[in-house]
Amino acid sequence: MSQVKAYGAEANDADLKQLDIKRREILPNDIHIEIDYCGVCHSDIHQVRNDWKNSKYPVIPGHEIIGHVVAVGKEVTKFKEGQKVGVGCMVDSCQDCDACDEGLEQYCEKGMTATYNSPDKHLGGHTFGGYSEEVVVDEKFVLNVSEKLDMKAVAPLLCAGITTWSPLKQWNVQKGDKVGVVGLGGLGHMGIKFAHALGTHVVMITTSPNKSEDAERLGADEVLVSKNEEDMKKHANSFDFILNTVPVGHDVNPYLNLLKRDKTMCLVGAIEPLKGVNGGALIVKRKRLAGSLIGGIQETQDMLDFCGEHNIVSDVEMIDMQNINTAFERIVSSDVKYRFVIDMQSLKD
Amino acid sequence: MSQVKAYGAEANDADLKQLDIKRREILPNDIHIEIDYCGVCHSDIHQVRNDWKNSKYPVIPGHEIIGHVVAVGKEVTKFKEGQKVGVGCMVDSCQDCDACDEGLEQYCEKGMTATYNSPDKHLGGHTFGGYSEEVVVDEKFVLNVSEKLDMKAVAPLLCAGITTWSPLKQWNVQKGDKVGVVGLGGLGHMGIKFAHALGTHVVMITTSPNKSEDAERLGADEVLVSKNEEDMKKHANSFDFILNTVPVGHDVNPYLNLLKRDKTMCLVGAIEPLKGVNGGALIVKRKRLAGSLIGGIQETQDMLDFCGEHNIVSDVEMIDMQNINTAFERIVSSDVKYRFVIDMQSLKD
Repeated sequence: MSQVKAYGAEANDADLKQLDIKRREILPNDIHIEIDYCGVCHSDIHQVRNDWKNSKYPVIPGHEIIGHVVAVGKEVTKFKEGQKVGVGCMVDSCQDCDACDEGLEQYCEKGMTATYNSPDKHLGGHTFGGYSEEVVVDEKFVLNVSEKLDMKAVAPLLCAGITTWSPLKQWNVQKGDKVGVVGLGGLGHMGIKFAHALGTHVVMITTSPNKSEDAERLGADEVLVSKNEEDMKKHANSFDFILNTVPVGHDVNPYLNLLKRDKTMCLVGAIEPLKGVNGGALIVKRKRLAGSLIGGIQETQDMLDFCGEHNIVSDVEMIDMQNINTAFERIVSSDVKYRFVIDMQSLKD
Repeated sequence: MSQVKAYGAEANDADLKQLDIKRREILPNDIHIEIDYCGVCHSDIHQVRNDWKNSKYPVIPGHEIIGHVVAVGKEVTKFKEGQKVGVGCMVDSCQDCDACDEGLEQYCEKGMTATYNSPDKHLGGHTFGGYSEEVVVDEKFVLNVSEKLDMKAVAPLLCAGITTWSPLKQWNVQKGDKVGVVGLGGLGHMGIKFAHALGTHVVMITTSPNKSEDAERLGADEVLVSKNEEDMKKHANSFDFILNTVPVGHDVNPYLNLLKRDKTMCLVGAIEPLKGVNGGALIVKRKRLAGSLIGGIQETQDMLDFCGEHNIVSDVEMIDMQNINTAFERIVSSDVKYRFVIDMQSLKD
């Protein structure tokens, strides 16, 4: 066991500051990773601030981790020292239930072990995330990353990437489909990039006309301003799939009206109550409202491989660890294009 | 054209009374039907009372029609004089769009012609339903009914039956599945009968413990009282499909919690806004909330054939046409097991 430097929050202080934490010894299947970069996810803020009433302190956030291997357990064959690797939102699961057997560890029936703020099976207490110098993770939950990509910009793929990729694959989005992406933030900008790379006709659906230029740069073929009722009518019953990345409860009815018969809108952001969903909006043309939670390990690897082939990364703004509290404030006011990534070198300075 | 006796409502009077209406002449593909029985659907009340703000007066309700053929157009080959037949919620559609091509006329892209209160392509004005002596319908929208069934009790299959049958087939409910039916009324009692006949483990989900005995008589294997939090917890994440027949907006979150990962709850009753659906209830185990509207003509015929093979009919209470206003009141106060059917002989008396 060793002490490592990390950044986190104590119970009575939502400001993050340097803390010392313990890392476990290297087990036979473990990968010991020195962290180079860690993306900043909106959910990090929710956890630090205990918005979901399940935080355990101290909270060390971070589940968009890119690093390099500094040591491997004696039974590890898939990874070697020096290799660039990624760790996403999970570091363990039961590996024995139907969900795990299907490669859907995020839906593990005994509960996945989240990268931070989950019960820690090895050390007791709870897990600590990637706002840290180092992390030790079972090789099953460590991902390969293409060395040809810009590592800083790969970090957000581990959460924002897989969260938007998984529903596009789950709902079998195909070349030529008309796909809507609602909301242009960390998730939405990845949704546009993936939907574009999959050969769909991508429509960015937003309340803010001033996001048009950026949406088109990211790969949107059209921008639909949801406040424009006339335009919303023109697009009614025309979408094959809608990816809804809005991170808070909102009125989904105008978006349901955009779907074709038998088609689906999938929520990936809003875990809160939605404003009165009209049963009629689902019944009249047999539409579906669904949800999706990150993605399994195999599909995360598939997504990263796809990104390597298609040269896809996130749009990021780099910060030093010491500026994390300012970054949190800027995320809350949607002032980031589109993901902050912490240069973990700054923690060592 | 001929004058026929019917029962309906005028704009300023929600009480139904006898009216004279016109029936069209028999076109080459038409079936002229003398109506024997007509079921009373809750939506008849909504239309008579203009609850959905789209009623056209006079309203002659009725879309659960059983009758016998009195004449056929010269090109008709499928039906013959004297034959027992059914007519459900539709009497026409464009027959030319993708939905119609797929046998899903209820989702016709140009709008199906509902049995009543839709624009009438032949006579102008709007269509009149089955609270009437006679009806003339294109043979494509006329159904065969098994002569061995009790015709009075077949009538509600034309709406309550197909509305619950279609989602069970659409969502591929299989023998051995655990299926929940929420709400025990006209729709719910058919949902139980079908789910039982399909070999599933049927759980009646209700707020009223006093419905248990009847639910079991209808085919439910278990009754789950949704107000019992302990029992609801025991059944969490265990259902393969839930058919939700509640006819008004309500809180669907407790029912979503009952579904397994990747499974669906389908609404067939509530066209109104639902109480704040939790995005998290859909996201955390990738669940789905869907809707379904009646069913297509071919699947209605399949359902009627299945009923013939399995000896399935509705539980009905017979009324005379003159008692329709009392029946409406009793439906509103859930005082019917489980469908009123009008003996149309009473209109001729």
